[in-house]
Formats: sequence, structure tokens, C-alpha cells
Amino acid sequence: MSTALFDYYQANREKHLQGLFELLRIPSISALPEHKPDIRRAAESLANDLGAMGMKNVEVIEGKEKQNPLIYAEWLEAPGKPTLLLYGHYDVQPVDPLDEWISPPFEPTIRNNNIYARGAVDDKGQVYLLSKAVEGFFKTEGKLPVNVKFLLEGEEEVGGEFIDEYVAAHPDRLKADAALVCDTEFFGPELPTLTTGLRGLVYTELEARAAAHDLHSGQFGGAAPNPMQALAEMITRLKGPDGKILIPGFYKRVKRPTAAELASWKKLPFNEKNFMKKEIGTTALVGEKSFTVLERLWSRPTLEVHGIRGGFTGEGAKTVIPAVGTAKISMRLVPEMNPNEIIRLYKSYVKKITPKGIRTAVRILSSAPASVVSTDSRWIAAGAEALEQVFKKKTVYMRSGGSIPVVGTFQKFLKTPSVMMGFGLPDDNLHAPNEKFHLPNFYRGIETVGRFLEILGG
Amino acid sequence: MSTALFDYYQANREKHLQGLFELLRIPSISALPEHKPDIRRAAESLANDLGAMGMKNVEVIEGKEKQNPLIYAEWLEAPGKPTLLLYGHYDVQPVDPLDEWISPPFEPTIRNNNIYARGAVDDKGQVYLLSKAVEGFFKTEGKLPVNVKFLLEGEEEVGGEFIDEYVAAHPDRLKADAALVCDTEFFGPELPTLTTGLRGLVYTELEARAAAHDLHSGQFGGAAPNPMQALAEMITRLKGPDGKILIPGFYKRVKRPTAAELASWKKLPFNEKNFMKKEIGTTALVGEKSFTVLERLWSRPTLEVHGIRGGFTGEGAKTVIPAVGTAKISMRLVPEMNPNEIIRLYKSYVKKITPKGIRTAVRILSSAPASVVSTDSRWIAAGAEALEQVFKKKTVYMRSGGSIPVVGTFQKFLKTPSVMMGFGLPDDNLHAPNEKFHLPNFYRGIETVGRFLEILGG
Repeated sequence: MSTALFDYYQANREKHLQGLFELLRIPSISALPEHKPDIRRAAESLANDLGAMGMKNVEVIEGKEKQNPLIYAEWLEAPGKPTLLLYGHYDVQPVDPLDEWISPPFEPTIRNNNIYARGAVDDKGQVYLLSKAVEGFFKTEGKLPVNVKFLLEGEEEVGGEFIDEYVAAHPDRLKADAALVCDTEFFGPELPTLTTGLRGLVYTELEARAAAHDLHSGQFGGAAPNPMQALAEMITRLKGPDGKILIPGFYKRVKRPTAAELASWKKLPFNEKNFMKKEIGTTALVGEKSFTVLERLWSRPTLEVHGIRGGFTGEGAKTVIPAVGTAKISMRLVPEMNPNEIIRLYKSYVKKITPKGIRTAVRILSSAPASVVSTDSRWIAAGAEALEQVFKKKTVYMRSGGSIPVVGTFQKFLKTPSVMMGFGLPDDNLHAPNEKFHLPNFYRGIETVGRFLEILGG
Repeated sequence: MSTALFDYYQANREKHLQGLFELLRIPSISALPEHKPDIRRAAESLANDLGAMGMKNVEVIEGKEKQNPLIYAEWLEAPGKPTLLLYGHYDVQPVDPLDEWISPPFEPTIRNNNIYARGAVDDKGQVYLLSKAVEGFFKTEGKLPVNVKFLLEGEEEVGGEFIDEYVAAHPDRLKADAALVCDTEFFGPELPTLTTGLRGLVYTELEARAAAHDLHSGQFGGAAPNPMQALAEMITRLKGPDGKILIPGFYKRVKRPTAAELASWKKLPFNEKNFMKKEIGTTALVGEKSFTVLERLWSRPTLEVHGIRGGFTGEGAKTVIPAVGTAKISMRLVPEMNPNEIIRLYKSYVKKITPKGIRTAVRILSSAPASVVSTDSRWIAAGAEALEQVFKKKTVYMRSGGSIPVVGTFQKFLKTPSVMMGFGLPDDNLHAPNEKFHLPNFYRGIETVGRFLEILGG
């Protein structure tokens, strides 16, 4: 890295940290409509920052009424150099259960060299480090080593509908040689990592309806259908106790990873006992016995129940047979499963297993295919090199069991491959209380992205 | 009925209705701690009323810190006459889902000759009619035809712990020849009914715990145990799709009703299709095929899931594997099942069916045995006669699938049999939105209780 750039990043660590804190204080929760104004504040704060540093054509792009804005910004004054599309999301997950947070989710706090806050690592911390890495070039050289387009979204945690529509509608504006998607994590501490595959997602609500209104379980129990019992029955018919999903045709298109990829995963420092006890805190792992744990997480589809709404769940003893219950159920997809086909199979199977006296309805909240990227492109090579130079360790390759639907969107509409370079750690409590971002990774993330741009520009 | 008493009841209908409205406006929900002050207001209003009419030794009896007060009042100036214990409860169920109420639950409204309000029939309307029936004697004759003790409670909807303790500790004060429990309903409109049996209840919370904290379903799905899936599996192992409860030993002590009782139920005007479509509003009934619907509701035990807490149930798509889930599960008991034995069998079976990676805990929120009363006592005969005289129809006998634990308590600690005479109707929406009390039954309930006292005093 150029000495000036390195010195700039070092000298501005505290300033960058305080800037991130300001962004983290905005509760930009996309799942809860009451946080719409916070979504807007976060978007405007990021857009103002990009404009102030020297990015051009900065725009807060409005979608349809319920959609959250995208942020676009570009700097295209490096003729002959590659064009890089930088992606991250400024929306965050809800914070419940709130009482399990040690410090308030929107009051960022440093403990044990970590930044604790909702969104610290997923993904506001990583969005912010992208912008600060780019700003370093403007401040030290007045220009960037490559052409850069930012595209930041505010709906990643709720399905990312708008970015999908926008990318599909504006391929010329967004076209790039590669995308840098900064929303992933290292395989372990001090183990620089590029992610080369993601699972897809189909997120559904399964509603079971029985009586016309709630019933007294004394008066009606024994003869009236109970939607809670029906959902329990249906859930056990969707996934068996062995982790196998029982929807006919579900596994039909599942493609195993290559032998080389499977062999490389075997070499990763994965300690199953540690994963079980430290990362999860449970007494046993579950799932398909004939696959290793990493395969179950990265290259096998799954089905999970996230919560069941309906009936009485408060304090005390209300004896109600609810009229309706709704289970939030998602499926993770792997290559080459087709989300639309899976939705079709799921809906038709749900109809088949609906118990007597129950009427079911399925709502699809979001869907995205899985994606894999090739490990031998120049973009991946540059990312690996940048990581190695900053972290002084060999870069490893992994997949992620989560979904970053935008990677599939960039591939589909822009034919742009993604470098998934993120700086989280496996125990960062994503989507859970006490989310954190390892402070040194925030600083080194800025340096790595800076170095990545230098390499691509050089 | 004495002409003076009859005329008094007729002349004061509007006054009685307005008095009930005032009581119904107090949101005395016992399941929600924030309504403690309303519980107290309701208790004091009733106690003041009893004192003002002429009852003696009126007392609002305080329990332990979290308990809701009892109301006691007596009038014992009819030597040689029987002593009657009058029971009802002034607490009500929660009101959710609030948006399904046509008029606000605590703003009583008359529509179609019904009083709509939470507690209209269960049980504030019936508590109030007891007191107004008694008041009629004071106003017309200055004395009562029998000795009377009131015992009103404020915890019936949450387990009735305090009344149990209090009755056990004060048998001499409460001793009576019979109790009049006014918290039941008619088998059908214009069909005066005495209830001769009640199911018991064991209400539990089944908690399933897996990870130390909520997990991201992308990162961990496929290998981490999911408490929601575990609860679904356990629920289907507690009760099969045929309605049979699978806890070993559960049916061991179940006693069938006598042949005469079963024969009398066959004569009741029960229309299964009407019950299914009008009262429940469903497309099929469920449960044990080898028993009639009335047997399933009155003389067979059952198990129901009331709600499942945990995970994410709000708007949107949160991809969480919750650390913990809790199912509210109750069992209805019939004679001669023993609640403590059922709790033991349930707990030990839950342990056995707990899936790998899950730690379960069972909490018992309340329990009470079933109770049956003999149809050939003089108390039942007097109740039947009073009903017939006011309603001009032959009284029928039924059981109820619900629980009135206090009936068992009176039997156990006072050796006092209960006459369960209540004036609700089957479609009164107990424990549900739009609870109602048929207005003519409120007025005739007052007359019937008055006539009942006259008959016993005569």
C-alpha cells in the first residue's frame, strides 16, 4: 500500500470509529414499519458522506411506497482501469429479545476490543469501511485507482425487493467488471477468508385456520380442530427428526460441491465440539448424519421454523383454542435448486398434508437462488492478495450458509461476478442480541479494501 | 315467587342493567399484572354493594402479594333454615385479539337483545345477578329466606390459587349446606339447564431450550437444534392426529359416565352439523371417533396447545433459529383422573420425548380435578324447580367441558355440594372477542336465583 494511504488510515482510526458510531446509533430496522424514518436518516447520512468525499452523481433512489431507498454514487475518471461495484446494506435486523443485550443495541459500546451494536458487523460497519477505504484515496491522491460505483441498499434483511427491480431495470448504469460485496465473515479469527458460495432462501408464512373465532378449550377441546396442533403436525411432516426435508422432489436438483472444494473444506480448522459448545452453546448437533457439519451448513438445503404466531403466549393461563396460527418457515437452497420450483413443490405438499378441519394459506415473503463463484478469477485473486498483505496470513476459501441475494442478482442482470470479502467473525451474534464487530477487523477492513483497489488499479 | 319480590325485580330491570354496565366497564383482567388496580376496583365496588344492601361482615380479603382479593359477606339470621354459599368470580379473560371486537370490550353495548362486553357472562354478569337477587329480599322483606354467605374471587381465569388456600384454611367460616355456583350456561336457548359435571385442568408451559442465544438460520441451519421444530415434534408425540393422547397411563383412571347419564345426553337437542358450522365455524370436527361429540367434550380428557412463544413472529422475514421456545399446553381431566398423577406422567413422558440437543422444562400453572355432582339431591331438585318456574320449560342436565375448580375445592374442604346454575348460552364467545350475555337471561337469572332461595327457605 502507498505510504500516504497507509498513514492516512492509521491517523484517522478514531475519527472513523466515531463516524461509524454515529451511523450505528440510527435504528434502521427494515422489518418494522415504524422505523421508516430511521431508514431514511441512515440512507441520507451515507449519501451525504459519499458526496462530501468526492463521489459523483450521488443519489438517494426512491422506490415504490413501501420500499426503502437505494444509494448510488460513482467515480468514473480512471479510463482503461476496471470498474468496481461496491455493495453493502444499511438496514439491520430487529433487536428482540431486547433484555438479553448487555449494552443497548443502538448505543455502540466498546468491550474486549469489540464494537457492540445492532448492525455493527451486519452490515453498517462493513458499509462504512467501504466508504472510508475509498475516501482515503480522495484525501491522499485526489483520485481513485479504479472506477468505482457504490450501490447500497436498505432492504437486505427483508428480501431486497427494490435492489432486484432496480438492477434489472438499470444494467447500463450499474455494469461493472466485478462487484465487491462486503457482508460476509472470516472462517475464524485471524483467518482471512473469501466466500465463494451462498445458499439461497425461500421465506414463507404458513397460516392454518380452523374456527371462525377463538374458542374456549374447555367448551370445545376434544372436538374442535386446533391450528397449533395442525401446525405442529405439518412441521413434523415437512422435516423429519433426522433433518431430512420430506417435500417430494425437494432434493432433485441439489448439486454436490466438487471433490476439490470438499477436500479444501476438510483442511479448514473446524472443531465440531467447539462449534457445538462455544458458537452454539448446545449439547448436540442435529441434521443429516451422512454429511459433515460444514456440508450441512454450506452445501445442503434445510428448512427452519422461525416462530409461530397465534393463540395466547403472554403471562398466565389463557385456555384458548386459537382460530388461526401462522408459522414462519424458511428453506435454504443450494445450487442448482430453483426457488420457483421449490415454492411450487412446497405449496402443493402443504395442501396435501393439511389436516382435516384446517384451511391453510402460504405466503412467500422472499426468495433467491443459491450462488457459487469461481475461485480462479483475477478478482478473487486480487481479493486474496489484499487480505494476505494486510492480515499476514494465507487466504482461505469457504462458503456461507446464509443468503446474499444480491450476488445472484448481479450475476443474473449484470453478468458481474462478486468478490465476497467481509470481515466478520463466526461468533459475532448476527441477528441475535449482542451483535459485535471485532474492532481490529474494522480498521484492517478499511486497509484491505484500499489495498484491493490499489492492486486492481495497478 | 312472592308478588312483592317479582314486582321489585321487574321494576328495577333498567337500574340492574346500568349497575352491571358500571361493573363491566372495569377491565379486571387477572392474567395481566398491569390490571391489578382494576381488579381492586371491581372487588371494592362489589363489596360496597353487598354492604349497602344489608349483608353483614363484608370483607375484601387480601392474600399474598400477587394474589387478588376475595370478597366475603354473610347474613345468618334465619335460624333453622339452610345456609347457602353463593359463588362467582369478578376477574375476566384478556381481550386479545382486540381488533376483532365489534364494540370495545369494556364499553358494554346492547345489540340484538344481548349485552356485549368482556365479562358480560363470564362471570361478572352472573356475579352481579346473584347480588341483585339477594338484594330484592332485603328491599321487599328486610330479610332473606335462608342464611347466605357470599364468596367471590378474582383469580378464576388464572388458576384460583387464593380461594383454594382460603377455603382450606377457613372451613368453619365458609361451611354451608350447599353452594350455588353461578358460572355455567344453558345447553341451548330457552333450555334451562343444571350442570352436573366439570372437567378438571392441568395447565402447563413446556419450554424447549437449545442454543445459548438466538442463531442466524443461514449460518447455523442444518446443524443447530431448533426449539420450534423440537416443540412441534413433542406436540405430535403428546397427541396423535386421531385425538388420542399418547402419554403412557393417561387414560388409566378415566371413568365412563353411567348408562343413564349417557342415555340422557342422547336426548339433548344436539345438532352436530350446527355445532360444527355455527358454533365453531369449521369444516370438520376432530377427536376420538369412538366417542360421540358430547362425550368427547364432557367425559373424555383432552390436550390442547394454546400458543407457542419464542422466535420471531412480527411482520417481515427474520431468519432466526430461536434459543428457546415455550408452548402453553393444557390437559382437561375427567373423573377419576388425579391431577398430581397426570402431572407426574406428563413430566416423565416429556423427558422421554425430548429431542437430541434440547433441554426441556415443565412449569405447572394450575391444576384441578374433575368433579361430578349427584342429580338426586334436594339442592339440585330445588334448582331445577326454580328454573322451570321462571323459564316455563323442563330443566335438563348436562356436563361442561370447562373447569370450575372451586366446585372441587368446596367438595374437598367443606364437604359442600354445588348447584351449578348459570344463565349463559353456548354461543356467548367466552374467552373470545365479542363475549355476550343474552339480556333476558340476565333478568330471568335474577328471578331464578330469588325463587331458588324462596324454595329452599320454604
